[in-house]
Amino acid sequence: MPYAVKAKQEGKRVIHLNIGQPDIKTPEVVLDRLKNIQREVIEYSSSEGFTEYREKLATYYQSKNVPVNAEDIMITTGGSEALVFAMMTCFDAGDEVIIPEPYYANYSGFATMAGVSVKPITAKIEQNFAPPPVTDFENLITKKTQGIVLCNPGNPTGAVYSKEDIQAIADLAKKHNLYLIADEVYREFCYEGATPFSVYNLEGMAEHVILIDSVSKRYSMCGARIGALITRNEEVRKMAMKFAQARLSPPTLGQIAAEAALETPQSYFDDVIEEYQKRRDILVQGLNEIPGVKCPKPGGAFYCIAELPIDDSDLFCQWLLESFSVNGDTIMLAPGSGFYITPGLGKKEVRIAYVLNEEDLRKAVNILKEALVVFTAKETVQP
Amino acid sequence: MPYAVKAKQEGKRVIHLNIGQPDIKTPEVVLDRLKNIQREVIEYSSSEGFTEYREKLATYYQSKNVPVNAEDIMITTGGSEALVFAMMTCFDAGDEVIIPEPYYANYSGFATMAGVSVKPITAKIEQNFAPPPVTDFENLITKKTQGIVLCNPGNPTGAVYSKEDIQAIADLAKKHNLYLIADEVYREFCYEGATPFSVYNLEGMAEHVILIDSVSKRYSMCGARIGALITRNEEVRKMAMKFAQARLSPPTLGQIAAEAALETPQSYFDDVIEEYQKRRDILVQGLNEIPGVKCPKPGGAFYCIAELPIDDSDLFCQWLLESFSVNGDTIMLAPGSGFYITPGLGKKEVRIAYVLNEEDLRKAVNILKEALVVFTAKETVQP
Repeated sequence: MPYAVKAKQEGKRVIHLNIGQPDIKTPEVVLDRLKNIQREVIEYSSSEGFTEYREKLATYYQSKNVPVNAEDIMITTGGSEALVFAMMTCFDAGDEVIIPEPYYANYSGFATMAGVSVKPITAKIEQNFAPPPVTDFENLITKKTQGIVLCNPGNPTGAVYSKEDIQAIADLAKKHNLYLIADEVYREFCYEGATPFSVYNLEGMAEHVILIDSVSKRYSMCGARIGALITRNEEVRKMAMKFAQARLSPPTLGQIAAEAALETPQSYFDDVIEEYQKRRDILVQGLNEIPGVKCPKPGGAFYCIAELPIDDSDLFCQWLLESFSVNGDTIMLAPGSGFYITPGLGKKEVRIAYVLNEEDLRKAVNILKEALVVFTAKETVQP
Repeated sequence: MPYAVKAKQEGKRVIHLNIGQPDIKTPEVVLDRLKNIQREVIEYSSSEGFTEYREKLATYYQSKNVPVNAEDIMITTGGSEALVFAMMTCFDAGDEVIIPEPYYANYSGFATMAGVSVKPITAKIEQNFAPPPVTDFENLITKKTQGIVLCNPGNPTGAVYSKEDIQAIADLAKKHNLYLIADEVYREFCYEGATPFSVYNLEGMAEHVILIDSVSKRYSMCGARIGALITRNEEVRKMAMKFAQARLSPPTLGQIAAEAALETPQSYFDDVIEEYQKRRDILVQGLNEIPGVKCPKPGGAFYCIAELPIDDSDLFCQWLLESFSVNGDTIMLAPGSGFYITPGLGKKEVRIAYVLNEEDLRKAVNILKEALVVFTAKETVQP
């Protein structure tokens, strides 16, 4: 983004709250495995990924009471590729897919690649981004509707769907014979001891459910580019394999890292969850203390959406980089409009990723507070 | 491929001559770098790849007299992704692209993803798969034609295009305002001291040329999944960045490996080229000594196409796995038809990758020889 580059060139320090790149360390067991790599040839894996990794990964899910078998799993180049394969496989050009908004902006790009039209259903900040009633989903269903895509826990909202929420949506998917694609890459990040309900635990949905996963967030190794497309639907697996074969193999080194990551001790996750929960509390409390700012407390992931006392967060985010700083520091936020497909929505909102340490987060909240004073005064003065 | 799995289950040893996965070791400098990895977080790179790697990669090209600048380079997830991005960026659905056949079968898949129709131009085995005359290319050009895709040195033929060949095709591309996409991933594999001519050395073609590259074959690290899309055309780079951003980042560990690979000593390549040239000579001589077999000597890459005294190489390749073995060994070949888009072509041909050691290659040639005796006798007897 040129604004951030320019800000840095002008000597500002830009605190990045706009991207989901955690500062959390990758588990030591992963880096140790790389340091002890035994291979002599970094060769292709099979297109669906190394068998040994897929088998161990199935065991991981089973340990979380998610009944995944190794043959259900196709390893992909990140969760992104799993989503692309899922959309290309399940949908034809001209089909429609229902996705609750705000949603991860890249979903739109993946839908475009598959030629699919996204029909958004709006989750509201006033309701803490709880999933809209299932009747609202049903109202959107047409002859062209072929699927529903969920992200749970949610990026960008941090909302965690209850078992009942998921079941109601699943019943609808079954009734109308739709695919239910669930992006569960933030599964490990649930606070106050909550356990998210996986679509893979739904009964009688074997032909409908496609689970999307990734090691990126779980082990803070976004750069490994290892994800998974998981389904009991054999037709979908066969079709997805055609796309998998076209790109030959998922990354071998990433798979070695991801397989090692499965040995990460529980204490790592306990520490990480504690850290994120602390950051969330600092951030959300700090935001809600700023006059005019409203931020529901997210139950999972590491993002929140905040409503600001402004009319155009695109402009505000740009202005923060171009024209504002406190002691040489400024902040980079993701404008809300990028997460909505319905025109005009999200203009007062920003997404904030709490992937930074406590000190930077406190500093960022303070910068936002001071910035809003200046920006809103400026807006009032202007004709 | 189920036939190969079945053959292995029946206790046969399958000698794989069908895939381009070399047995050559990855350079030690790569594995050493991984063993000394200093990172604590395996994070995303930027979508176009690490700047440091791109800068070093540009220096590598310059050392080969290929004038690439760092800003021309986008790092991709293998050469496959570079080809997909190039086709998606340069072409619209319904456009036509000219590709000399036989060609790497996955090109068809990439074209399908981009909605592009491939117009093949046939290179003939009788002419050692030399590029067809440029007038033949021109005859295929319609209003819908937007580009030409070349692979040089060629997979599956091993043909190396001369400077004059490339220049003539480039002149045509310029005359008709077409993109010229050149897959040069086998650049290092040229025999008898030949140096391939890169499209990046063409004069006055900055807006037309897209160079596709990969570290997979050069350093025998197919599993790294690191390639590159290289062009001076800024519009193409901008558009390709949109696709790059949708998949976030190329693999970080693969980039670390690829950056280290740039320090591979020349002696590694000298040894590898010597080894491949030896294998090629053993294979091609062995093949041409089999009655009825014709195999032009390839000038580059590590494949050859052989014509066999049979009518259906799909059937023959299947039969080799299902019904034939010599002392428990059989061979897996790639049927020629998969490399042609013109119906009926390649039925007498197979592609053989000489990525195995001398002993296995000699054994493979002998198996093929004996198999042809049995198979052709069988064919003659049958009604």
